[in-house]
Amino acid sequence: MKYLLGIDIGATKLALALGDGQGRPLVRWRRPTETTGCARDDVSRLLADCRRLLAEAGASIGELGAIGVSVPGPMSSERGLVLRPPNMPGWEEVPLASWLSDEFGCPVGLENDANAAALAEWRVGAGRGLSHLVFLTMSTGVGAGLVLDGRLYRGAGDFAGEVGHIPVVWEGESCACGRRGCLEAYVGGAAWTRRLQRVVPEQSRVLTLAGGHERVTPEHVVAAAREGDAFALAEMDRFNGLLARGIVSLAFLLAPQAVILGTIVAAAGEELCLAPLRQKVGARLWPVVGRQLQILPAALGSELPYRAALCVAKEQESAVSGNP
Amino acid sequence: MKYLLGIDIGATKLALALGDGQGRPLVRWRRPTETTGCARDDVSRLLADCRRLLAEAGASIGELGAIGVSVPGPMSSERGLVLRPPNMPGWEEVPLASWLSDEFGCPVGLENDANAAALAEWRVGAGRGLSHLVFLTMSTGVGAGLVLDGRLYRGAGDFAGEVGHIPVVWEGESCACGRRGCLEAYVGGAAWTRRLQRVVPEQSRVLTLAGGHERVTPEHVVAAAREGDAFALAEMDRFNGLLARGIVSLAFLLAPQAVILGTIVAAAGEELCLAPLRQKVGARLWPVVGRQLQILPAALGSELPYRAALCVAKEQESAVSGNP
Repeated sequence: MKYLLGIDIGATKLALALGDGQGRPLVRWRRPTETTGCARDDVSRLLADCRRLLAEAGASIGELGAIGVSVPGPMSSERGLVLRPPNMPGWEEVPLASWLSDEFGCPVGLENDANAAALAEWRVGAGRGLSHLVFLTMSTGVGAGLVLDGRLYRGAGDFAGEVGHIPVVWEGESCACGRRGCLEAYVGGAAWTRRLQRVVPEQSRVLTLAGGHERVTPEHVVAAAREGDAFALAEMDRFNGLLARGIVSLAFLLAPQAVILGTIVAAAGEELCLAPLRQKVGARLWPVVGRQLQILPAALGSELPYRAALCVAKEQESAVSGNP
Repeated sequence: MKYLLGIDIGATKLALALGDGQGRPLVRWRRPTETTGCARDDVSRLLADCRRLLAEAGASIGELGAIGVSVPGPMSSERGLVLRPPNMPGWEEVPLASWLSDEFGCPVGLENDANAAALAEWRVGAGRGLSHLVFLTMSTGVGAGLVLDGRLYRGAGDFAGEVGHIPVVWEGESCACGRRGCLEAYVGGAAWTRRLQRVVPEQSRVLTLAGGHERVTPEHVVAAAREGDAFALAEMDRFNGLLARGIVSLAFLLAPQAVILGTIVAAAGEELCLAPLRQKVGARLWPVVGRQLQILPAALGSELPYRAALCVAKEQESAVSGNP
């Protein structure tokens, strides 16, 4: 029997999973990402972690069918390189795929995190059976993975899916990317948190739940909105309205069958987020485009990092073996 | 030797071309589209035109390798149906592909006009050799054909590429589609013409060239801008700025290698349009995305309808024969 190994290198957490030949996780393990400033040292530690995971599962290196890695961008899936992710000091053009294949002697696939997550939601999550879907990652920043015509679309230089930087308010709020009015400057977790800490009023339930301005996060807005807090409900409405603008642009351009939304949207749920989003997007799209578009919550939750990396491994194995 | 037959059904003109096996036009013919309100009658006339073109070229029906048709949307490429184009009364779910294959006994491919044009600019025009490109049609309306990963991307229900309806000014000008602030409501030929007829000032050279408010078109703006007219230059700047917004959105989403622009942009040329567009788009994109994006004028000019339909025929023949 062949195993698959999935490695998800997140901004804060590193997740490993050993999966069966279908990419179902058998053993999971994670730790803080903790970069040292030297990519070789970071990767040496990662390789040791992988070997330990294999040993604990009683699997030998020779039984590995493929390895899949989900990494932050910018990166090159074609060349298997991690270029220079903002949160990983010392990582510059790291040939992670070849270092891993040298160590473990099997094919290695590398995808950026949004693409890996889109693959997972498509293969085993909310988008199963569809041909055209957009998965929106909405954590600190906002990105997307695109599955078009039944395969991942990466664009030139793996830069497709930067939905977070579609302008939704021309010359609007400053974005972390240096531009203005980007979707991410409104609905990205970091930007929304900064705004909330500035604008939350004294009498809002949000402030009580958070225990101080500097502690307010979008999660407190969701919780307070559930209790009917007026400020929190207005913030959710603003969030939904701006997110709808981004979805309208991508829907007219790509005519996907589904937009799948993770993190804050999935957590906020039907009433606070998904239903109002569907209404706002539907009001702005043509009916014929809107009718074929589902707006869905991500299905994989905390399993996502493991499933994402394992799906990359599975795709890589299929590509090499020629079996779907 | 096998011939290919291309049929381009435009809003105002119908163009036919008999091509060689590579899709190079050998004989061209065109006439006004002139619909009668009865699709069967319209198609009977079209079939007669096709037979006459074959006869004039000394080609027999048996020598036809494939037929390609470019039609206005909405349509279904998969089912070979013309659904109900706004400018073709009486056309409703017309099975044009099967009517043509019944008549001529060869494979028939049907594409919407933007997709057919994108195919042609990709195969034999400005986008030769690229893998990811967007062709923007800018006539009465604004649409796009998307070539992604070296193949046409049509989206669910053939609705991908409706770039003209990406919002560029939220709650802005009314669009012919019933929504507000669409790109087409600013840079589409019909919308721009309506605006110009309303706002052109008495002293502008545009008015002299056009010979009256009700005769002003974008072409007069281009001509007057070439002569340095202040109003015309300001209009070109506004046009370029709004078009840049649409291009920025699609570039962040798709990371194409090229955006290819037809009609008014190609006619206005480098100085008035392409150079300022590149500057405005470049200023708003990330450098790493902008560096890989070329903004190019369409190369096929008045040959486009013939080449577009013949490229659809060629794709269809390749798909059926399995030879690229």
